[in-house]
Parts: sequence; C-alpha cells; structure tokens
Amino acid sequence: MAFRATVLTLYPEMFPGPLGISLAGRALARGDAVVEARQIRDFGKGRHRAVDDTPAGGGAGMVLRADVLAEAIDAALQPDDGRPRLLMSPRGRPLTQGLVRELAGGEGALIVCGRFEGVDERVIAGRSLTEVSIGDYVLSGGEIAAMALLDAVIRLLPGVMGNEQSGIRESFETPLLEHPHYTRPAEWEGRRIPPVLASGDHAAVERWRLAEAERLTRERRPDLFRGWKDLSPEDG
Amino acid sequence: MAFRATVLTLYPEMFPGPLGISLAGRALARGDAVVEARQIRDFGKGRHRAVDDTPAGGGAGMVLRADVLAEAIDAALQPDDGRPRLLMSPRGRPLTQGLVRELAGGEGALIVCGRFEGVDERVIAGRSLTEVSIGDYVLSGGEIAAMALLDAVIRLLPGVMGNEQSGIRESFETPLLEHPHYTRPAEWEGRRIPPVLASGDHAAVERWRLAEAERLTRERRPDLFRGWKDLSPEDG
Repeated sequence: MAFRATVLTLYPEMFPGPLGISLAGRALARGDAVVEARQIRDFGKGRHRAVDDTPAGGGAGMVLRADVLAEAIDAALQPDDGRPRLLMSPRGRPLTQGLVRELAGGEGALIVCGRFEGVDERVIAGRSLTEVSIGDYVLSGGEIAAMALLDAVIRLLPGVMGNEQSGIRESFETPLLEHPHYTRPAEWEGRRIPPVLASGDHAAVERWRLAEAERLTRERRPDLFRGWKDLSPEDG
Repeated sequence: MAFRATVLTLYPEMFPGPLGISLAGRALARGDAVVEARQIRDFGKGRHRAVDDTPAGGGAGMVLRADVLAEAIDAALQPDDGRPRLLMSPRGRPLTQGLVRELAGGEGALIVCGRFEGVDERVIAGRSLTEVSIGDYVLSGGEIAAMALLDAVIRLLPGVMGNEQSGIRESFETPLLEHPHYTRPAEWEGRRIPPVLASGDHAAVERWRLAEAERLTRERRPDLFRGWKDLSPEDG
C-alpha cells in the first residue's frame, strides 16, 4: 500500500510543486507515494465561500473557522481512516527524524496547512489534530512546512532511495552531525583531501569520520552531543 | 533596494514554486523581493556536465564537487557582492526567527542547495559558506529548505504583510508560543469560545492570552519557556 498524504490547503495549486521533481517526484510517478491537495475553500460559507473571520477578543489577523475546517477534514477522511492528522504550526511538536521515520512506517497522513493568524482552537481538539512544527521560525502558511515533512518522509519509503543516496549514518540517523565529505580533484585551490581518506585503511577512515562527526557535533550542537555521549558511556 | 536571493540548485525548475503564490508570490510580483534560481550543472565537467563524484575514502552516495560549485558561486556573485552565502544543510546553524529577521534586514542572500551525500568540505571553507539547517530531519535536498527560509524572510520585508497578517506577538516574535485563537461561530459542536474573549474587557483578554501562551509554552517547549522566564525575572 502506497503512503497516502492528503493535504488541506487554501493553495492546492502549490502541490506537488517541488515534490513533483527529483527523488520525491519519481516516487510519486511510480506510485510509491500519493500526495493529494484539497481546497479548504470548497467548504467555505456563503456566497464568498468565507473560510476565516476576525479573532474573538479582538486583535489583528484572521482566524480559520472551526466549522469550515472540520467539514473539509471530514470530507477528506475515508471510513476507518487511521492516518495521523497533522496541523503544521509553529506551536507544534518539533519535527524530528524520529517522527519522520514513524510517519514513513505508517499508511499516510492528513495534513492541514494553516494560513492567517491561526486556526480556531476548537477544531484542533474536536478533530484530534497533532500540531507539528518544522522549526522555530514563522512561515506565511503551512504549505512549505508540509512539503518539508513529506519530502523527508517520502525519501525513507521502501525503494525510494535505492543507491542514489545513502540512508546510513547520515545526519540524525545517528544523533551525530555528518562528517566532512571530499571528492576529486585531490587538490583544489591549494586545499588537499585529508591523506587518511586516500590511505586505503578502511578502519582508519572510519575512525577519522567518527572523530570528525563527534567534533562537529560538539562544536555546533552541544544539545545533540550530550544525547550522543549518553548513548556511549564508555567514551564519557 | 529589493531583497535579492540567488539560489544555486540542480533543480532550478523547482523555483519559485510555492514562493510564486500567495503572500510571497505577491511580493515577488511587486518586486519587493527577487528570487533567481541558477543551474549548478551549467558548470559541470566534461561531456556529461558531471557535478558530483564518489566520496574520498569510500562509502555510499555521491559528493558535489568543490571546483564545480565554486565556479557556480563565483559566476553568481556580483562585484563587491556582500550578501551572506548560505548552504542549506542538516549540519548547519539552526534557522531561528532571529536569523530570519537578520536576513530580512540585509540586501539578500546567495543560497546553495545540496543534493547527494554532501558537498565537498573545501568549497564550504574556500567560499565562506554558512551552513544553515531548517530542522533536525533529513530532506532529499536543500531546495525545500531554501523555500522555507525565503518564505520566512519575504513575509518580514517592508510592506509585504500589510494588514493581511499580524507581525505582533506571533510565535517566536516573543519567545512564547501563540495563545489559542477563536472566531465565529460562538458555539461549535458543543464547544464554546472562552467567555473572557466576549467580555469586552481588553485588559482581561490580554491577561488571558498571556497566561495561555505561557501555559502552552511551559507544557510544550520547556526549552523556550526557560528563556522567557529569564526575560521576566519579576515573575520568577
């Protein structure tokens, strides 16, 4: 069964967008994954198909209506639809590679993309939406966040990466950042590839890569490095 | 002077993509921002315009060549080009709203999108690239990451948001997550809007919103909440 994502958005024409090209695009073309975008405005109210209204209590911006969004969600679900229901939101649970893997092991996802000031809180509770954030910054809407999530998930689906990319020991498959990479030419602008990488000594190469990955993680992401040291107490 | 982004990618056809629609799309149409995508492969080597090669020291995947990428960067820069040079990479400095604001206050950015296993380390040093990560997960390439960064930056440019969205007190403009939002109808599926929001007592509304924002932040993101309490010692 292909991974099936249903995206609820006010801009369905944004999809598949970048997901239609390259690795994800080939997965969609093969049918390894399905991404269908649905227009929330189809469930809007009145002659102008209004989807939002002013915030209760006053303030700037507009709030996506609970009733409109609930109808859009209900119409997108199939009977006994067990897919997780996500709302892309900077208030959400931070997206991690662990959550990406969890989603990739499931049957798909329903993904709601917010716009405006926010989404009426009652539909989040009433339709059991899990808020997910791709990072601590503010986007104009959830669409690019949904694309990031789907790209990360699709590349992990069976058969998608093949030999094109390595899923092994890349960033966040272990808690370490990736070691430096080099390729030909051997010298470039006076900079040479570290000699160990041309030594043919595979064990030495592996040791160097691990040491470099540890160094980079310690320098750049002490938060991740602490987790790594907790996993390797013998090095502590 | 418009904010000018030059994106180096193997998939220029992905751009502007979702950035060409809605808030960012209108900013691009007005000329408040310019996003130009350039093909790295134009600087590829040989008859097949090769851009990558096998990793020194062995292993899976392919590495983007330093010489090819450096030529693409050099050709994209104007004389005295002072724009920051970013490489979208999961090893990078985490993107925050602070970095977004910093970029939005500048003249633009050169953004390199990696693909394959990685990028030859020497070009990162040799062309002073700053690695930036949009989150702790792995994408198939830097393109969607660049779109997330650009969307976040473009919405902060002067004149872009107008009255469409509020830049005030949204997530990460303060260190708190956003309080819940509500709008009509007053009752939906038995769920009512909190009475304080209909009280007309603006001070009470503000107190409620701050308390809810603090509660959500404390529950969901203790890391952010600690930073907030450090800013408000009188509440400690």
